[in-house]
Amino acid sequence: MKYGIAIFPTKAVQDEANSYRKRYDPHYALIPPHITLKEAFQVDDDDQLEELVTELKRIANETKPFKININKVSTFAPVTNTIYLKVEPIKELIELYEKMQSGKFPKNQEYAFVPHITIAQKLSHDEYSDVFGSLQMKNIQIEDEIDRFQLMYQLDNGSWTVHDSFVFGKEPV
Amino acid sequence: MKYGIAIFPTKAVQDEANSYRKRYDPHYALIPPHITLKEAFQVDDDDQLEELVTELKRIANETKPFKININKVSTFAPVTNTIYLKVEPIKELIELYEKMQSGKFPKNQEYAFVPHITIAQKLSHDEYSDVFGSLQMKNIQIEDEIDRFQLMYQLDNGSWTVHDSFVFGKEPV
Repeated sequence: MKYGIAIFPTKAVQDEANSYRKRYDPHYALIPPHITLKEAFQVDDDDQLEELVTELKRIANETKPFKININKVSTFAPVTNTIYLKVEPIKELIELYEKMQSGKFPKNQEYAFVPHITIAQKLSHDEYSDVFGSLQMKNIQIEDEIDRFQLMYQLDNGSWTVHDSFVFGKEPV
Repeated sequence: MKYGIAIFPTKAVQDEANSYRKRYDPHYALIPPHITLKEAFQVDDDDQLEELVTELKRIANETKPFKININKVSTFAPVTNTIYLKVEPIKELIELYEKMQSGKFPKNQEYAFVPHITIAQKLSHDEYSDVFGSLQMKNIQIEDEIDRFQLMYQLDNGSWTVHDSFVFGKEPV
């Protein structure tokens, strides 16, 4: 089964991201707006899953709630024409990311870690230029508090269901 | 904010339910296939939410993993033309439901509790007759193991994001 790990920002931020995703992101219906901490990885063994859940509890317990800041719309072009809310790459996020690439976790880092909330992807070239041109002008100033992450698995239709939530400082192993 | 409490069955059961929902359920994209334990209720106060989370941990800790059985497709017609996988109403499910209607929880029981996984709803009269006629003939024999429930909140677009997961026997208060 394919698993992934993500942070959902608070409802207000999800609602704002969805106002763009609804029009510009074909993954709109597959998962709520999120910051990916670990891209999809395969786990087929129940014992291995159990081990990773224990690791994730440890990681959550070592982590204190932290604030994130989003100050601009950015893009992965020319690699892909994905447009995103850029989350300032503070050390708390980077540490979470790195912990999930080491120890018992499969290493599946494909790109450098750029914390972000995708709001548009898989657009045609012309659509991309239009949409990025207009979103780039937006004055974005979001501060949000993060106190948990979620382990999810992917269904056959591509959508994601939450397996477990990990609340910082509240997951006795 | 609107919250709700549900059980997600295992992936195989979600995939099967989605094969029907995709065509017949306009809520397909809003939430994975689920058994509703508590319909949407309003919580606007952080302290109240915290209290309910503590209650849900207590309830999860008192509950042992249990098996559910699904042996037929049924309908709420003529009240609504919702079609669902009927989950046998075992005492474990009824107890979870009742605990979430008492004590600190707002009472929001509108109908008798009929545990189910919706696979079709909001169909026209003719569509409903066709779809129920054909689904009713299916030989359904599903057994599934349940070991957790999830507290979710609703976004402005009607979709649901998981706030927290509660694993039976593993949520020290």
